[in-house]
Amino acid sequence: MSTDFFSADYWQITALNNQHELAIQQHIDLKTKPPGALGQLEILAAQIAKIQGANQTRAPSHLAIQQPSILVFAADHGIAKHNISIAPQAVTTQMVHNFLAGGAAINCFCKVNNLHLTVIDAGILAPLNQEHHAITHYLERRVGCGTQDFSQHTAMTLAQCQQALQFGAEAAQQALNNNSNCLGFGEMGIGNTSAASALLCALSGRPAEQMTGLGTGISSAQLQLKTELISQALQRARLAHQLQDSDVFTPEQALCEFGGFEIAQIVGAMLATAKAGRIIIVDGFIVSTAALIACTIAPHCREYMIFAHHSAEQAYQHILDTLAVTPLLNLSLRLGEGTGAALAIPLLRAAVTFYNDMASLSNANIVLDSNSH
Amino acid sequence: MSTDFFSADYWQITALNNQHELAIQQHIDLKTKPPGALGQLEILAAQIAKIQGANQTRAPSHLAIQQPSILVFAADHGIAKHNISIAPQAVTTQMVHNFLAGGAAINCFCKVNNLHLTVIDAGILAPLNQEHHAITHYLERRVGCGTQDFSQHTAMTLAQCQQALQFGAEAAQQALNNNSNCLGFGEMGIGNTSAASALLCALSGRPAEQMTGLGTGISSAQLQLKTELISQALQRARLAHQLQDSDVFTPEQALCEFGGFEIAQIVGAMLATAKAGRIIIVDGFIVSTAALIACTIAPHCREYMIFAHHSAEQAYQHILDTLAVTPLLNLSLRLGEGTGAALAIPLLRAAVTFYNDMASLSNANIVLDSNSH
Repeated sequence: MSTDFFSADYWQITALNNQHELAIQQHIDLKTKPPGALGQLEILAAQIAKIQGANQTRAPSHLAIQQPSILVFAADHGIAKHNISIAPQAVTTQMVHNFLAGGAAINCFCKVNNLHLTVIDAGILAPLNQEHHAITHYLERRVGCGTQDFSQHTAMTLAQCQQALQFGAEAAQQALNNNSNCLGFGEMGIGNTSAASALLCALSGRPAEQMTGLGTGISSAQLQLKTELISQALQRARLAHQLQDSDVFTPEQALCEFGGFEIAQIVGAMLATAKAGRIIIVDGFIVSTAALIACTIAPHCREYMIFAHHSAEQAYQHILDTLAVTPLLNLSLRLGEGTGAALAIPLLRAAVTFYNDMASLSNANIVLDSNSH
Repeated sequence: MSTDFFSADYWQITALNNQHELAIQQHIDLKTKPPGALGQLEILAAQIAKIQGANQTRAPSHLAIQQPSILVFAADHGIAKHNISIAPQAVTTQMVHNFLAGGAAINCFCKVNNLHLTVIDAGILAPLNQEHHAITHYLERRVGCGTQDFSQHTAMTLAQCQQALQFGAEAAQQALNNNSNCLGFGEMGIGNTSAASALLCALSGRPAEQMTGLGTGISSAQLQLKTELISQALQRARLAHQLQDSDVFTPEQALCEFGGFEIAQIVGAMLATAKAGRIIIVDGFIVSTAALIACTIAPHCREYMIFAHHSAEQAYQHILDTLAVTPLLNLSLRLGEGTGAALAIPLLRAAVTFYNDMASLSNANIVLDSNSH
């Protein structure tokens, strides 16, 4: 077995085969409704059935969303010192305190939807005082005290990046061991839309102008500086790796060059979730960038992913196109924290419930065909 | 007081004033997030706060979605005998049996989201055998044995239409009396997209070609016939009321001419809900048509309405434009039954929970402004 976290071999993710596909579709089509009338929920139910029926001899007749959990990874970014975010760097730590005290949006949405929440310090500026860990489940898996400023330096070392993937994988495995079969991912990190934009440039070969957006709402002067810094960083990193303008970076190169610790941990967590054959719920822009990296490392990871919320960031379109994504929600959220993932989970529960419990046409004595065709 | 169900005076719907608007917006803006970062959920919370704070001296600090209920109104349509639906007319009654036995999609979504479900026979072909009423709450409020074929005749009499509005209002009032403060509306009636399209033509003055769509998925030959029948019906009804091509019908004229019993009952139910100062959740195409009629009768009704699901029917755009609607979900559902309304309720609960429970910036010691602007 490979010991290289950046190889698909290491993760051994099972491709979902199509052996039950027809049976699953028939199970859905025989429900008391016109074919396709439940729209995206039918596609969702079929995907969950393929995931949960992968090791069964027959198409599953019962699906389950079991103790769904949101994992929010937090880290700081050196790039934030350039003041290209809506908030100062200190807000990362302040928001982690807020998560732990139960006061953030993600706490509210987990509470109302009965989701388990874990917050992971993946490398914020300084470790928290442990007394704060009262309400929310908390893991300290620090890779460093924030990444380096990627406009000047490599954001993290290869050893840090490997450590981050491993920590993320362990956090996911821990949640799965606690009887969850469905993990949603969120993030907190002032500066991380800059990291995500740089990552998308690196993976796509496209220029910063196409991949840089307003984040949570910066000014046009900030947007210009953000774009310039990302351009400069790409130039620096291309030189270091002897890459031409149109060349793309490997996931390993890109994560090391641009960070961040939380994004790398989410990549590892997603790969571990897919390896375990469980459902991955992908939040908005940052988490979708991590999803794209995970799928670049191990393409079968895509089959376990459900995309929760459409991001307004312009670079999100690249992710949509590359992974052929149709997110479930588009509520103009631009908060992160896994809020989109948490809000989408009732739709997963609805999909599973109709798959399990809705009557079939024959059992309900309903004849849809009107002999008109 | 007016005794005319078709006058705004009768319904006495309170306009939501703006006295608390600033205070509500400030309450939302001081939460631990950048302004606007919760997108449509912020707009939703503000609307609910305006509804629930209407009679208070201060902006509400606590909102509640209390025992939300789905009311599904079922009726038959004479127009269905032309075979312009995906299913034969008998399916209306078969689906009502399915609702009562707990086997339909709406049963599943009510169950998984903990919603109360009431099914109302507003005038299906024949009354049900009472033994079927085991699982689901059921009301028999029959206005007739299906409407007349509107391509040939007026669908219902004025007395039937008034009765329907009254029955609908009573059904809503009963749900509100049972401690619900939030009613979602659904429908079942083979042929009712034809009725809805005809109603929208009548209310807008536009031709059938612009307002007729595929319903749950008819053939192009069926679509052509459906369009012709609606055109013919409009011509017949315009003659009867001495209206010119560009004239619009009154809600009273339109409902009587084109039906159906379930649509008229939903109009009455919505008006009664708004009169009581409670939240109305509007499902897809048919229910949105009823919503447009309710708002035509009493424009302030709009302020109590939350639109749950975007419909793919082409005439839906007219409703969107007229009522300035942004639905919460767009999952390509085309089933009716109130399924979109039921699926949207977790978003209402999420909006209310963040409004009530999310920490304020000052309480969480968070300073968002980075002195950069």
